[in-house]
Amino acid sequence: MAEYIKRVIEKLEILGKDLFEQINRGENPRMLIPARSLKNVIFDKKEFILRLGDKKIERDFFNLHKAKKFMQTLLVASFAKELLKENIHASLREAFYAMKRTLPNSNENTFDEQDESDSCIVDLEVTLDVLREQLHLNADTKGRVVGDVIIEDRGDVIDWSKLGSGGWAIPSNVEAIEFKKVEAEFVLVVEKNAAWERLHEDKFWKKHKCILLTTQGQAPRGARRLIQRLNQEFNLPVYVFTDSDPYGFYIYSVIKYGSINLAHISDRLGTKDAKFIGLTMTDIETYKLKNWTIKAKDVDIKRAYELLNYEWFKKKHWQREINKFIEKKYKAELESLAGRGLKFVTETYLPEKIKNEDFLD
Amino acid sequence: MAEYIKRVIEKLEILGKDLFEQINRGENPRMLIPARSLKNVIFDKKEFILRLGDKKIERDFFNLHKAKKFMQTLLVASFAKELLKENIHASLREAFYAMKRTLPNSNENTFDEQDESDSCIVDLEVTLDVLREQLHLNADTKGRVVGDVIIEDRGDVIDWSKLGSGGWAIPSNVEAIEFKKVEAEFVLVVEKNAAWERLHEDKFWKKHKCILLTTQGQAPRGARRLIQRLNQEFNLPVYVFTDSDPYGFYIYSVIKYGSINLAHISDRLGTKDAKFIGLTMTDIETYKLKNWTIKAKDVDIKRAYELLNYEWFKKKHWQREINKFIEKKYKAELESLAGRGLKFVTETYLPEKIKNEDFLD
Repeated sequence: MAEYIKRVIEKLEILGKDLFEQINRGENPRMLIPARSLKNVIFDKKEFILRLGDKKIERDFFNLHKAKKFMQTLLVASFAKELLKENIHASLREAFYAMKRTLPNSNENTFDEQDESDSCIVDLEVTLDVLREQLHLNADTKGRVVGDVIIEDRGDVIDWSKLGSGGWAIPSNVEAIEFKKVEAEFVLVVEKNAAWERLHEDKFWKKHKCILLTTQGQAPRGARRLIQRLNQEFNLPVYVFTDSDPYGFYIYSVIKYGSINLAHISDRLGTKDAKFIGLTMTDIETYKLKNWTIKAKDVDIKRAYELLNYEWFKKKHWQREINKFIEKKYKAELESLAGRGLKFVTETYLPEKIKNEDFLD
Repeated sequence: MAEYIKRVIEKLEILGKDLFEQINRGENPRMLIPARSLKNVIFDKKEFILRLGDKKIERDFFNLHKAKKFMQTLLVASFAKELLKENIHASLREAFYAMKRTLPNSNENTFDEQDESDSCIVDLEVTLDVLREQLHLNADTKGRVVGDVIIEDRGDVIDWSKLGSGGWAIPSNVEAIEFKKVEAEFVLVVEKNAAWERLHEDKFWKKHKCILLTTQGQAPRGARRLIQRLNQEFNLPVYVFTDSDPYGFYIYSVIKYGSINLAHISDRLGTKDAKFIGLTMTDIETYKLKNWTIKAKDVDIKRAYELLNYEWFKKKHWQREINKFIEKKYKAELESLAGRGLKFVTETYLPEKIKNEDFLD
């Protein structure tokens, strides 16, 4: 049994024993769960990370409004323990179905909607201070990676440099992956699959000795954790490459600082060292991309104003970039670099940015 | 240079030479392009496939309404020839940017929106009778696969049985893949990634000697072509496993007969032999899944009525299934099988369906 499985089962048992003792003492059994409301999400300026504050909510059993949630939370805890003991995994949707049933002699279901079980899963994650993946509850899967790296996963030895055009599909759970060989000088994280395919076809990762990873949009948990592990365990710099618009900037910030929704696990998913390699609004001028820009929509501008107010975008250079977006009212996609020639991104743009260390922090 | 590249370049050159000769004869140069309007999409009852009819449209140069489209089509043809000669690929979006420019001394752009270049790409695909992938223009990428299969792709030898939990990410273009070893008795195509992860974790493909593939929703072109190649080149039966609802049924039909939008390439992407393994509406009763069904929405019922009228769903058993959906007004997702226990799908449902050959055709 893997070390983390023992540790998580132990935490689950402590939770159960504590409740059991409360009952034995004749008390109303209750759990204390860190509050996940927006008010309790704070940006830690010292650690430079989004995290939860100290507010906690009580969830007790003899309470008309809380009894159901109390029982649901324990159902999830018990389900997770079964998963860990059998060493199998379930998706959030499977977990919902597996736990959903009608209580005997009633019309009452354990869970009616997946929202309810999802929310209990996050509560448990926060309370026990473990990752959902360590409870063997898997989030959705997205993302692919190539590079001069050999890993071991489920007993298979996988060479990321020998996977043809497809690359390795990043699973939702990368906790158990063992790195056998990591020959790379940095990790390049690309927002979009098309740009990743271009760089892969041009063998960018071979020439520049990097690990090339695409998140295929907003980074899924598996990819974020993988980026973090590569950064922390191998001291690899991480460069994030996205569209030049508020969504691209936010994708970068989630990889770096964590997200508002998952503030309680920023430290386990965030990569503080990550740097933004582009596209910046300034790049559009420097690299003559104006011809291939797209007009920003009202909703994009609105999003930009939101970004301006986020603590973690308060740095001068980010304020400048975001304001430039609002002023110019256009954006550039990664693919717009193809306007300068298909290989422009591989042979000119990225090598120059890296050589000049032209990054935003 | 790969054989197909020579062939496609030849076709492009024939198109060019033909126009050149028309011009030399003093004619108004024109191309004949098969019409892709709904009226020209027919269901071929003999071949059991969606295909285009015989209607063609003329696209000529000296015609105020057609001159731009004429030139755009030739721009795409010329761009594709460059890609093939250099043996590189471009995504549809990259192609758009790479071809977009403002004509000298004018405000006229070659292309304003990606729709325009996409449409020309399909026109070229239809006219030349080649796949977009063979023009090196790549569609979006989705889907993963595992199994006892060894392939060669871009010089890498890839063993699909040794890729850990992630599997091989199916690229958008599978034309150049060479199969070195295929040890399998059938291909199981799973609509959803979560269900695929369950089956992969339970080693279903090892025990049942199959190739396990997920399309992650509606099947992308790369996955459809891969399924077809496995079926045609290795005589492998193909079983499709989707949610029990009109969208799931349609996913199956697209893999089998092709889609309305891409009717012109059904023969190059469709797998006529594919069979539907479930979930059927009847399965919901047989396998006691009623507790985990979801109420159908109005839009689902509306979609079901559309399906009833498609030629390729006119078979008695499909009419029965679709009508049952309309009558019961509920659907069951793949994950609902978890209600019967997480391993129910691996140990009971699929083995029984396969043993009893309980398929819909």
